[in-house]
Amino acid sequence: MKELKNDRYLRALLRQEVDMTPVWMMRQAGRYLPEYKATRAVAGDFMSLCRNAELACEVTLQPLRRYPLDAAILFSDILTVPDAMGLGLYFEHGEGPRFERPIKSMADVQALPIPDPEDELGYVMNAVRTIRRELKGEVPLIGFSGSPWTLATYMVEGGSSKAFTKIKQMMYAEPMTLHLLLDKLADSVISYLNAQIKAGAQSVMVFDTWGGVLTPRDYRDFSLQYMHKIVDGLIREHEGRRVPVTLFTKNGGQWLEQIAATGCDALGLDWTTDIADAKRRVGDKVALQGNMDPSMLYAAPERIREEVATILAGFGQGNGHVFNLGHGIHQDVDPEHAGVFVNAVHELSAQYHGR
Amino acid sequence: MKELKNDRYLRALLRQEVDMTPVWMMRQAGRYLPEYKATRAVAGDFMSLCRNAELACEVTLQPLRRYPLDAAILFSDILTVPDAMGLGLYFEHGEGPRFERPIKSMADVQALPIPDPEDELGYVMNAVRTIRRELKGEVPLIGFSGSPWTLATYMVEGGSSKAFTKIKQMMYAEPMTLHLLLDKLADSVISYLNAQIKAGAQSVMVFDTWGGVLTPRDYRDFSLQYMHKIVDGLIREHEGRRVPVTLFTKNGGQWLEQIAATGCDALGLDWTTDIADAKRRVGDKVALQGNMDPSMLYAAPERIREEVATILAGFGQGNGHVFNLGHGIHQDVDPEHAGVFVNAVHELSAQYHGR
Repeated sequence: MKELKNDRYLRALLRQEVDMTPVWMMRQAGRYLPEYKATRAVAGDFMSLCRNAELACEVTLQPLRRYPLDAAILFSDILTVPDAMGLGLYFEHGEGPRFERPIKSMADVQALPIPDPEDELGYVMNAVRTIRRELKGEVPLIGFSGSPWTLATYMVEGGSSKAFTKIKQMMYAEPMTLHLLLDKLADSVISYLNAQIKAGAQSVMVFDTWGGVLTPRDYRDFSLQYMHKIVDGLIREHEGRRVPVTLFTKNGGQWLEQIAATGCDALGLDWTTDIADAKRRVGDKVALQGNMDPSMLYAAPERIREEVATILAGFGQGNGHVFNLGHGIHQDVDPEHAGVFVNAVHELSAQYHGR
Repeated sequence: MKELKNDRYLRALLRQEVDMTPVWMMRQAGRYLPEYKATRAVAGDFMSLCRNAELACEVTLQPLRRYPLDAAILFSDILTVPDAMGLGLYFEHGEGPRFERPIKSMADVQALPIPDPEDELGYVMNAVRTIRRELKGEVPLIGFSGSPWTLATYMVEGGSSKAFTKIKQMMYAEPMTLHLLLDKLADSVISYLNAQIKAGAQSVMVFDTWGGVLTPRDYRDFSLQYMHKIVDGLIREHEGRRVPVTLFTKNGGQWLEQIAATGCDALGLDWTTDIADAKRRVGDKVALQGNMDPSMLYAAPERIREEVATILAGFGQGNGHVFNLGHGIHQDVDPEHAGVFVNAVHELSAQYHGR
């Protein structure tokens, strides 16, 4: 295996020494970049962009050409997995994702296949291989998946939701149906992420966007348990290197200790958690990724730098911090502000590293 | 002053002895009740219902006729205050609340009046007086307001929001404009809640629905600081009784200590916080209100009772618990399930009280 030219991101996830704090941005390949919009226009719709390995590679690399980011992340969508399970993903204009055949019953769950990642999801693996090749060892490539609970919300609700009425009805009225669905999803995600690792992903992240709508007990039973199963089932060493796994539950700040106890390498933090508190609570077990409010990129450059400085000081001396936004970058952000952010992390973090 | 026939709710808020845990439901007067829909149809639109003291009283009392609730809550809306400040509240069909004249600049903020609660908001005070009279001392009446931050989100965004783009732009780019707005809102809320108390509200609650979208520092500076000002400015004794004040920040579970330090009497908890943890953290300072997931009312009666038992056991022995949902009751809940919930609280809580 060729050595990585910049392995700062992987080293930080393993709480090893780095020269400055690595940084990337959730949804760094996206609509805030005019070059993304141009490529998306060539591809047609969103899923066509995901299914075209060359174009998915192109948009993955675009932010790296603009900013000195320390990692690339596969351009794809968390809903590729339920789509591959046969639910029929489509996007309604201005309405977000929808499924043609949402899950309604135990029979629906029993009929669900575990998708073959090199068959139904082969287009994702082709994108991973293409991106990994085109990265030429500059920075590591992050693979990802949605968490079983988060994927299940879309599969049961039939799309996005605010109140999560249908899945909570299922959770309270037919818990065994939901448990079987989550277990199948965990198996699907394990197979999907392991295939991404074999195809070239050097680190993986599980996005639990909707775990934060649960009670502490339901979070443990219906979300965390299945992420734990995923952590246990993942390839953790590949190409002679540890493959770090990061778990991110949005609005999960009250449960960091439990998430860290799964054996993952890092926790993603949203901006509602103080990173100094998080480090005190779990910094001896895991690395921390985060956690600037993405809305801060609306502010003036000096204010952005000030916030970066505050978060760096909150984490303080020592290893184990990957800087990021607390959630995806907003589509109406000025690309120059994203550059201010990335540069500020590198420039202002050097003082916290080295002898 | 006539004595209350049932003062369990007020006693629990002051952490005094009670015979069983008092219970009420956020949005207990609402669309899940057919009799509410009938009265609403008579009134016409939502604001006409709020403006009609007799009909507002009628819908306030409806849930008390069905269930042995321990408190009534004024039927109104948090957006009455910005409306009285001249922003022009209206409801777009299926779109939620909108303002005709949202706040865009320092000049807009400077021009805002502090509304006279007996003039522009006189219809609310008429409703309070009518309800208090018609309650005939059965149970106490709760008055309420939105928090300054939560009201400001609607005033700056022009309505409901998902990303809070405009108000966060203002917060980061023009913090002094936002601080002046929040300060005027705090003054307006103080005057509004004190008028409700004089008109007959025996307890007041401040709803900070959107404080949870902030960073810990921004929460303290832009939301909590102004709720603290409100707590300091409220009438705390009236008619020879303490008037308890409850603060509720949705998704504020990480900040309970700071909220309790404002000097409020009680904290509202959403369902993402474990009530046993909350009691350990702040139970020596404040009462706790909450915190069953409103979606639990979709479950079968036995499952609802089981959840009530779990939450009661979490709080355990001792005073200072007001049972409630962690947020408003959903409109598609079966009214019989709400009855199961209320009865379960009374029946299952007696063991935790008394000698």
